[in-house]
Amino acid sequence: MLSSPGGQPPPGFPGGAPRTPGRTVGELGEFGLIRELTSRITPTPAVRIGPGDDAAVVAAPDRCVVASTDLLLEGRHFRRDWSTAYDVGRKAAAQNLADIAAMGAEPTALLLGLVVPAELPATWPTELMDGLHDECQVAGAAVVGGDVVRGETITVAITALGDLHGREPVTRSGARPGDVVAVTGWLGWSAAGYSVLARGFRSPRAFVEAHRRPEPPYHAGPAAAELGATAMTDVSDGLIADLGHIAEGSKVRIDIRSSALDVPVQMSDIGQAVGIDPLQWVLTGGEDHAIVATFPADAKLPARWRRIGEVLHPSAAPQVTVDGAPWDRAGGWDHFGD
Amino acid sequence: MLSSPGGQPPPGFPGGAPRTPGRTVGELGEFGLIRELTSRITPTPAVRIGPGDDAAVVAAPDRCVVASTDLLLEGRHFRRDWSTAYDVGRKAAAQNLADIAAMGAEPTALLLGLVVPAELPATWPTELMDGLHDECQVAGAAVVGGDVVRGETITVAITALGDLHGREPVTRSGARPGDVVAVTGWLGWSAAGYSVLARGFRSPRAFVEAHRRPEPPYHAGPAAAELGATAMTDVSDGLIADLGHIAEGSKVRIDIRSSALDVPVQMSDIGQAVGIDPLQWVLTGGEDHAIVATFPADAKLPARWRRIGEVLHPSAAPQVTVDGAPWDRAGGWDHFGD
Repeated sequence: MLSSPGGQPPPGFPGGAPRTPGRTVGELGEFGLIRELTSRITPTPAVRIGPGDDAAVVAAPDRCVVASTDLLLEGRHFRRDWSTAYDVGRKAAAQNLADIAAMGAEPTALLLGLVVPAELPATWPTELMDGLHDECQVAGAAVVGGDVVRGETITVAITALGDLHGREPVTRSGARPGDVVAVTGWLGWSAAGYSVLARGFRSPRAFVEAHRRPEPPYHAGPAAAELGATAMTDVSDGLIADLGHIAEGSKVRIDIRSSALDVPVQMSDIGQAVGIDPLQWVLTGGEDHAIVATFPADAKLPARWRRIGEVLHPSAAPQVTVDGAPWDRAGGWDHFGD
Repeated sequence: MLSSPGGQPPPGFPGGAPRTPGRTVGELGEFGLIRELTSRITPTPAVRIGPGDDAAVVAAPDRCVVASTDLLLEGRHFRRDWSTAYDVGRKAAAQNLADIAAMGAEPTALLLGLVVPAELPATWPTELMDGLHDECQVAGAAVVGGDVVRGETITVAITALGDLHGREPVTRSGARPGDVVAVTGWLGWSAAGYSVLARGFRSPRAFVEAHRRPEPPYHAGPAAAELGATAMTDVSDGLIADLGHIAEGSKVRIDIRSSALDVPVQMSDIGQAVGIDPLQWVLTGGEDHAIVATFPADAKLPARWRRIGEVLHPSAAPQVTVDGAPWDRAGGWDHFGD
């Protein structure tokens, strides 16, 4: 780790100097900020050319590259009073690197497009970069390039790249009736943490931390591909919604067995405290970036995968059911909805 | 071309229906908008998996991928009263694909991150996508994925990918004293067009069009790499500023011969009309995405390359001179400056 996530901004200049250079991104200037950001980057062996040129050059040994892009906006995807810049960096990287893993690929690189207001403290983007960097290290990737511009709303645009190392990509469209549905990673923790934060609390800490900083099981994506996963995705919009993408892409129906889902006691306690069925978090909460996949019925799944349902022949809607019945509280998340 | 750049929005429903679905991106909804956008995409043979899954998969035959990312914000990088959505799409794609070409690579793919206000007419993002698509076709690439979210400021985040086809990447750091400096493409046209638009005029049309829709010489990047270019970049910030990046990266000095620069008569006429030395546009105007490179002195340059200067041993600042002297009007562009 290059800097403490809770790191303090550098102390002001003594003597009441009217202008303290470096305190805001506007004072630091574009090139000063880019210098600060790139100084926080450690390349991996896959990086042939890193930041500072017209483009980066990254190894793609499999002769193809896996690529995904996502945007996070302040106020919509994160709040500065709930999450540190470091946490936003970890989360922004995680959600993109998880998309790469969910194809069965190993993440290699990350590019950052960053919009920042001129009056933002310069420590915010540098701590964001520390978060991106550290999450990349967990996933085996490196930040290789980016762009920084001034604007009103902090916007973090991430593109992640990855390599399949000879594996076939696992899409959402290969699930077949008779397959089992299995999941690994966390489900509902981020949503429970959000509910806690939205009510003005800061604990239980485990759930608040899960909301601030998801921990996708990156290794599980390539491992599932090697185990013969027929379809796979990461849970970014909620288990029912994301399994709905597999059901739609594969033209099948999927039934989830609620008794197979893990609802920790502590999550039930919070649910009782805030009046929410914790199964709602587990079934419809996104942002934990668990990995859910379908496998042939005879696949030998490793210990950390949990069988949670099965793939059925297509029938009338809904495409995803829980214990054979529609889940009555709408899942999914339309970014343009109210 | 999939739709006319000047295409009209679909007619409203007759009979004064209070709500006309599809008229704004908010009414269309996230998934409706994504459907509209992806329907405008034509894959190329390099696209193994296009939009609609967790990530795209794109061929990288050279076993490495060239990647660059850029942001365009409304009000800062484009104005809706000056440029159509289609033009913004063309320009956003062009500036990223030019970065790929400037490494000596051939563009393969483009990813779009798009922030749009809910009240924006839905034709705006779809015409933007038409522009991205058409510019990709010029460069031989395809749109392969993206993300769309709601926000206050229209923001276009582009990541472009490319392949070197066995060529070594041409960076900014290989220029050697004795090399010649040569350029191909347009210089100063976009800046002249900006000056015209900023004064409330809409002509001369050629310059206004150049500002709205740059035409980078994509093919020239890989060609220069094969001709043995020692350093290369595209002119996005202005000739002096971008040659400054080469001079700094290569630890050399570069002298431009002003008599070798092409100042069209019509550009001189506009300069006279608005009181600006047209050489200022040619030397410091960005956004045309010409390609400038350094070559060994004995390199045989094709017809459309113009020798404009030479690489010298390093000396005291400035690193880039014009006819042996510093250019007295500051070039470059600091995105956080006033």
